[in-house]
Parts: sequence; structure tokens; C-alpha cells
Amino acid sequence: MTESRFERGSRILETIDGEGGQAVVDSLQDIAPELGRWIVEFAFGDVYASDGLDAKQRELVTLGSLVTQGGAEPQLKVHIAAALHVGLTQAEIVQAILQTVPYVGFPRVINAVNVARGVFQDHA
Amino acid sequence: MTESRFERGSRILETIDGEGGQAVVDSLQDIAPELGRWIVEFAFGDVYASDGLDAKQRELVTLGSLVTQGGAEPQLKVHIAAALHVGLTQAEIVQAILQTVPYVGFPRVINAVNVARGVFQDHA
Amino acid sequence: MTESRFERGSRILETIDGEGGQAVVDSLQDIAPELGRWIVEFAFGDVYASDGLDAKQRELVTLGSLVTQGGAEPQLKVHIAAALHVGLTQAEIVQAILQTVPYVGFPRVINAVNVARGVFQDHA
Amino acid sequence: MTESRFERGSRILETIDGEGGQAVVDSLQDIAPELGRWIVEFAFGDVYASDGLDAKQRELVTLGSLVTQGGAEPQLKVHIAAALHVGLTQAEIVQAILQTVPYVGFPRVINAVNVARGVFQDHA
Amino acid sequence: MTESRFERGSRILETIDGEGGQAVVDSLQDIAPELGRWIVEFAFGDVYASDGLDAKQRELVTLGSLVTQGGAEPQLKVHIAAALHVGLTQAEIVQAILQTVPYVGFPRVINAVNVARGVFQDHA
Amino acid sequence: MTESRFERGSRILETIDGEGGQAVVDSLQDIAPELGRWIVEFAFGDVYASDGLDAKQRELVTLGSLVTQGGAEPQLKVHIAAALHVGLTQAEIVQAILQTVPYVGFPRVINAVNVARGVFQDHA
Repeated sequence: MTESRFERGSRILETIDGEGGQAVVDSLQDIAPELGRWIVEFAFGDVYASDGLDAKQRELVTLGSLVTQGGAEPQLKVHIAAALHVGLTQAEIVQAILQTVPYVGFPRVINAVNVARGVFQDHA
Repeated sequence: MTESRFERGSRILETIDGEGGQAVVDSLQDIAPELGRWIVEFAFGDVYASDGLDAKQRELVTLGSLVTQGGAEPQLKVHIAAALHVGLTQAEIVQAILQTVPYVGFPRVINAVNVARGVFQDHA
Repeated sequence: MTESRFERGSRILETIDGEGGQAVVDSLQDIAPELGRWIVEFAFGDVYASDGLDAKQRELVTLGSLVTQGGAEPQLKVHIAAALHVGLTQAEIVQAILQTVPYVGFPRVINAVNVARGVFQDHA
Repeated sequence: MTESRFERGSRILETIDGEGGQAVVDSLQDIAPELGRWIVEFAFGDVYASDGLDAKQRELVTLGSLVTQGGAEPQLKVHIAAALHVGLTQAEIVQAILQTVPYVGFPRVINAVNVARGVFQDHA
Repeated sequence: MTESRFERGSRILETIDGEGGQAVVDSLQDIAPELGRWIVEFAFGDVYASDGLDAKQRELVTLGSLVTQGGAEPQLKVHIAAALHVGLTQAEIVQAILQTVPYVGFPRVINAVNVARGVFQDHA
Repeated sequence: MTESRFERGSRILETIDGEGGQAVVDSLQDIAPELGRWIVEFAFGDVYASDGLDAKQRELVTLGSLVTQGGAEPQLKVHIAAALHVGLTQAEIVQAILQTVPYVGFPRVINAVNVARGVFQDHA
């Protein structure tokens, strides 16, 4: 039987984010359940499910995006945990954040390493 | 003899960007030569020279950052060429750009794939 | 007698924002009183006072803008309350926030619905 | 028979954007066909297909978002045409753009009305 | 007799921007005349008319803002010309742009010095 | 003997920021020591060390940049303190923040004056 987009998305969400992603989806249930469903079906069932890059590579791109946009600290927290979960080391995650300094300057990067410190402490 | 930051940066700039990066640096010579020097010494001699991520990984983060900030089409063009130069395939570069859809939406991503098309045609 | 821009702005501010807008203006009195005056005179006395769109339509545009820029959670809070005040329903406000997903991605939208939840609870 | 997400999205895309939206989707066919498919299925088949706001209201939110993010002039062009297509008048579209002045300042708004002028001339 | 806000704004606009600012205001006459009036009355008649900073200082802040937001090249062009007009030297303007590198990274700054080059050539 | 970039940067950092800047650098020691070093060597040893603008002028540009990017409240706090430290008055700092209203709108500016209030109270 074919896996539905929702089933595929849920499976990949857990592979990538562990428990953190599902917690975000659950937290939206009361106010905008379709938003949680879209994250599962579209972000994970479609985008992350595409061929061509592995999970570590996708998290490197995602870190570059989230550090850059600013004001996305809750999502950065989830994806730094996700980056650890798919096997990037703490040192690699810090390097990925620092790699954005030439493109976005110091403020976004300082804020991001402070988020990373908190996530690393939670996983110690 | 120790390599200076400028020498190290110039060497890495060429490894990463091929001719495109040096062209940017040269273009700044008339109006802000220190800006070109900072790109060589700081962006490449310090940041790219750090241990912990290889050139392909650094370009994945950089693509995530440049697609996200918008209004950086000239730099996106240089770094899509750089991504090819360090060995990422066209398919991997497109996937890296598409990976940002859940984080920045469609407009930035459509604009970025249009830049990529132009770079790919120049390298065909 | 002609209504001054300040009088017109104050009247419209109350029509749109109820008490929340005046509270913002008052809070600026100690440090930058002209900023409060400009909000009343320019934002409300000029911009909101223009013909052509009604208050609900103006709040829909405003929600689209505030969700998109990020880092404007305090203002989003004021304008979600304003949207309720001019007669948009909770369901319409959530839909307005979700409508931005294709243009700004999930992080800004998740943060905005979390702000909306708080405002809705305060108005329950 | 149930309409698929793609069929529903294609139908709504045409209702909203007329020919302009399909042209964007077609233009992505060579380099990132899944991106075009996601726009149809997700943006239009899921988000625009939601209940609770009509097409005019959705375009007001979308204009607020696109004016605000900057660097999205090609998408602003498509959605100003879409706004006309769903029945907003030129005067209402200009008012929607001007409504963002208090939230994003003059530069983004000046650039947006210049895009609007071009679209209005094409539709004259 | 008291000077109106519009008269005061027009006078300051010319002091600051020379001909460039009035050209922007005139260009909006066909599509959004109130936008041009707001620029004169609010931006120049209120904000620039405030005490406490001189015209050179106000242009330094403005350059910092316009370089940072990206996608505001037309406005950056007007304000680099304005900065020359109020007496900042080419060298000071370049330094003001370069001063933002630590806060916004290289792409925005490279794009801004390229705009500056064009303005300087027009004033040579 | 020649002063190293690090020594020059440390000296200028203290001249500009007083204790606040060094505190930021120290706080990065555990997670990304090279980031602290780059702030000292590059931001202060290279950029701030350039000729052509004095410290007050550089802080005016920096305030314009930090207010504009949003989500940089911790850095805005450091640089409002720095602005006081190099001799700008509270009134001048407020004017610098208000000067950005025409370019970025009210939300960023309201958030920035609220940061300024806190810094001014700490320095009372």
C-alpha cells in the first residue's frame, strides 16, 4: 500500500527532528490545526522527502536560512536539536552558524550561538 | 614561512570561487579597496579557513543564507558558481534552494532558481 | 469647525485599536513624545483616514505586513486585538495569518499564531 | 469523483491569478518542476483553498506581505494583476500598498507603487 | 505668518536632497499623490525638521538604514546624492557604508558601494 | 613595536563600547571563541579603525543599521550604551532612532526606543 503524504511526512519529521518537531505540530492543534498538517505534509512529506540531499545537508541549508532571517529563535532551537539528531556534531553546527558571518554580520550570529549553547546544554 | 591572512584568503578564495570571487574583489578596487581586502582576509582567510566543515558544506550554508536574505542576487550568482566549482551538482544546488521553501516561502526561492538557471547556462 | 489631524487621528485610533493603541502612544510619552504624536497624526490621521478601504480591509493588509517583517510581535499583538475590535472574527484572523505561509514560510507564521492565541485568550 | 489537490490548485490558481500564475509555474518546468507543482498543490490547493476569507481578502493580505518583504517585485507584479483579476479596483490596490507605510516606511512603498503603475498600464 | 507643514517639508526636502527628492515626489503624482505629500509633510516636515541632529548626522543614520534593509537601491541612490548635497565627502559616504559590514555582512555593502560609484560618477 | 590587529581592536573596542563590548566577547569564549576574536580583530581592529569618520558618526550609522534589521535588540542595547560612551547625548540617540521612521516604519522604532529607555535608566 502506498504511504500517504501525511504518513511519509510524519515518518520523516521524526527521523529529522525527533520529538521536537512533533511537539511543534501538536502545539498548533488548538488554534490552527491545518498549519500543523501542512508542516507534516508539505515541509516534511514533500520538501524534505525530495531526493538529492541527505538529512545533514538539508539541516546545513536550514541553519543558514534560519540564522539569516532573524526573529526565528524558536525554530532555530528546533533545528539545532534536529541537526544533532541527524548526526551533525556540536562543532559542525557552530561552524555552520559562523559560516554566515560574512553574509549577515555579527548580531544574527551572536544570537544564534546563544541559542545553540542552550540546546547543547539540554542535550549534555 | 608562515602564510599571511591575505595569502591564505586569496588561496582559499580561488579554491572556492574560481575566477568569480577575485573579480568581485577587483571590482571594488576603485571605490573601496579595503572592502575587497576584508573579503579576502576575513571572509576567506578567517571564516572559510576554519576547520570543521568542508567547502561543499560551507556552500550549502551560504546558499541557505543568500536565498533567505533577498536582494542578494549578484552574490547568489557568485556562490551558485562557487557551489559548482567545489563539486556540488546542479541537482544538489537546486535541492539546496528548494530546501528553503518551508522557511522563506516561494518568492525568494523562485527568484533564486531563476538566478541558478542563468549560472547553469553560462557553465553549459 | 475643522477637526485637526491630531483630533482625527485620535478618533480613528480609538475606532481601530480600542484602548491598545492609545496605550502604545502613552507609553512613548516619557522618551519620545513626538513619536506618539506621529503615530496619531500620521499613521491614523493621514493613512488610516484615507478613503477607499474599510477598517477590516486595512487590518488584513496590516496583519500581512506585521507577520512578514518578523520581530514585530508587540505590534502584532496590538493589531490582532485591533482586528477583533473592528469586527474580524478569530477564524478570519487565523486565516489571514495562514495566508502568508506561501510568501514567508512557516517560522514567521508559527510565531504569529502563537501571538494570536495569547490575544484570543485575553479576549475570551 | 474527488478532485485531486493538483486539480483543485490549478482551478484556484486560474481563478485568482488568471494567466499570470500558470506562466510562473510553466517557467519553472525546466529547472525545478516540483517547485511549480508545490505552488499549485500547496499554495493554491491547500492555502488559498481554505475557508474563511474570500479571494479579495486573501489578496489584501498577500499585498501586505509582498510589499513588506522587499526584493519580491516579480511576485508583486503577479499579485497586483491577481488583485485586479479577483475584482479589487486600482484605487483599492493603491490604498492597500499605502496602508503599509506606517509599518515598513516609504522605500518599500514607493517601489511597490512603481510596480503597480506598470501593471495598471498593461491592463489599460 | 506660520509656515505650513507642507511648506516646511518642501523647504527642508530641497535643503537635504536638492532636486532628487522633489523628482521622487513628482513621480508619484499620477498614481499616489498623497504618498508624495506624506513624504514632504511627514518625512521632511516632521521628522527631518526635528531638533537635535544636523543634516549630515541624519544622512549618516539614513545610510545605515537603507544599506541594511536591502532592495532599496533607488532610495539609496537618492540619499547618497543627498549626503553629498549636505556636505559629506565621498570618502565619508564610503566609510558610512563600510561601517555596516559588521552588522549586515558583505552582500548588502557590496551592492551599496556599487550604487555609490554610480552616484559619484554622475556628480563628477 | 607594531600593535597587532587584536591589540588595536581591543583598544578601540574599549574606547567605543566601554565594558559592554568586552562582555559580549567574553560571553562567546565557551562556545565560539573565534567569533569573539573576529569581533575584536575585524569589527574593531579593521572596520572601526578605519579613517574618515569619528566614533560618534560610526555609532550613528550603526544605530541606523541595528534599528532597521530588527531582532537585534541585544546588540542595540550594547550600541546605545556605546553611543552614550562616545559622547552622544540621550536626546541625540533618540533622534537617531526616530530618524529611521520614514525608512522602516513605526514597529522597529517603537521597539528601539523601548530598548533605549532601559539603557538610559541603567545609566541614570
